[in-house]
Amino acid sequence: MNIFIIGIGLIGGSMAKDIKRIMPYAKIYGIDASESHLEEAFALNLIDIKSSYDDLGIADMVIVSIPVDVLVTELPKILDAVNDACVVFDGGSTKNLICKQLEDHPKRRNYLACHPIAGTEFSGPSAAIEGLYNGKTNIICEVEKTAFKLQERALELFQSMGMRIRYMNPEAHDKHIAYVSHLSHISAFMLGKTVIEKEQNERDIFDMAGSGFESTVRLAKSSPAMWTPIFEQNKDNVVETLEEYIQNLEEFKQMLLEDNFEGIYNVMNNTNKIKSILNGIPLNKK
Amino acid sequence: MNIFIIGIGLIGGSMAKDIKRIMPYAKIYGIDASESHLEEAFALNLIDIKSSYDDLGIADMVIVSIPVDVLVTELPKILDAVNDACVVFDGGSTKNLICKQLEDHPKRRNYLACHPIAGTEFSGPSAAIEGLYNGKTNIICEVEKTAFKLQERALELFQSMGMRIRYMNPEAHDKHIAYVSHLSHISAFMLGKTVIEKEQNERDIFDMAGSGFESTVRLAKSSPAMWTPIFEQNKDNVVETLEEYIQNLEEFKQMLLEDNFEGIYNVMNNTNKIKSILNGIPLNKK
Repeated sequence: MNIFIIGIGLIGGSMAKDIKRIMPYAKIYGIDASESHLEEAFALNLIDIKSSYDDLGIADMVIVSIPVDVLVTELPKILDAVNDACVVFDGGSTKNLICKQLEDHPKRRNYLACHPIAGTEFSGPSAAIEGLYNGKTNIICEVEKTAFKLQERALELFQSMGMRIRYMNPEAHDKHIAYVSHLSHISAFMLGKTVIEKEQNERDIFDMAGSGFESTVRLAKSSPAMWTPIFEQNKDNVVETLEEYIQNLEEFKQMLLEDNFEGIYNVMNNTNKIKSILNGIPLNKK
Repeated sequence: MNIFIIGIGLIGGSMAKDIKRIMPYAKIYGIDASESHLEEAFALNLIDIKSSYDDLGIADMVIVSIPVDVLVTELPKILDAVNDACVVFDGGSTKNLICKQLEDHPKRRNYLACHPIAGTEFSGPSAAIEGLYNGKTNIICEVEKTAFKLQERALELFQSMGMRIRYMNPEAHDKHIAYVSHLSHISAFMLGKTVIEKEQNERDIFDMAGSGFESTVRLAKSSPAMWTPIFEQNKDNVVETLEEYIQNLEEFKQMLLEDNFEGIYNVMNNTNKIKSILNGIPLNKK
């Protein structure tokens, strides 16, 4: 089995680590826009062969883990280059534009639209983690548009990795993921910005920061190159979540100003039920 | 040595666990407004003796780990009850009002104003963790107002627990802690609220939530009974941080609406430097 991974960073590299364990007989070909990333992935033994689009004709499976703006331009070319029996899937955090873009592609049946909900705030080949996908959710969109045998090949891999599969349409995916992922990133980035701006001349202040602060701003370490195109593609949904979030913060501030501490207690108490929701989310093993 | 712990939950209970290791000869007396918490603390072997204010006269050290609103009313009574050679310290997340309240107390020299920056989102005796304070910062305010010998006794304990000590005045403490702690809690609570409101009829959606969401909203599990009086006492500083945070979120939204994705890239890229700041924060061992 010839498996190509295009974009061999955190997401692609972690896939590679699992594939080496699950399918030791598979050959992993790496392709990356960054020559140094490709070298690093090879040195880390994530890939067996440094490759290019010219070789895509021999691929049985292509995993495309690149930022969502380049996904839109590259996926059509990748589909053009693969053979009829090859399955191509991606890991992009937006699905609507990509699915629209490929709607009329002659090899649409070779493509499976995926979003494995997994990752860390780090990036690049050295950030790859074995078992990253274990217990995580993989959202698959428009599954009916993919050839059945090719679906099967990808799903078998996902199941071996321990992923739970959920099927959604791309519009619903993009709408809901704005709430449970994209908004968290903005909230963390803006919290980090607020504190850095205020405390830029008082670096000692960060001695006062505890693990709670760390947890809340952790995502502000994420890659801007990856996240800018996500926000661009999901702009309408993200703006909507952001408006609701700002509205809730304004209401909280108003309650403070009006000394309505009963209201503040109640809103926190009602939000405590997030406990039972979070209990269902598997964390990365450290 | 007779050590009294008033409020035997996460903070007091974790102190008890460390004291049992560091000073096995010490006797730990527990006092708690909740009879069931006191029973639980005794059953968990956090305390040796269930006690009351009547016994405070025999205390060599009193640790007061109760919500900040009751700190203001209870600390004067506790100081009234202790003997001249006893040191009393607290763990409250606000310091200004408490220090003002005790300014003219005849036993002000027996009190050390402390804020150990440590905790988790859980509460109660069963949430106590051994080693919680190891590597964490303890902020001490108005140290010059505490009798030197009594400072020493408390500092020796903090050092044995592995804490780093920082000295600040209460105004500066309350101003900066609003940024690196209180704001994080509001951001997490309002993020949780926004998502719960939106997704209340679609519980399956939380299958889409990953470890990033978990990290960002983790603090929304915190105790409203503990946090409401903190926000009340630090209202002015908290409102200021909240206004700056909302302003940053508004600017981010504006850049989205104007398709200014270069600006969005830059603001995230500039905030990435939070990485080096966060590297200095010790996390809780799991």
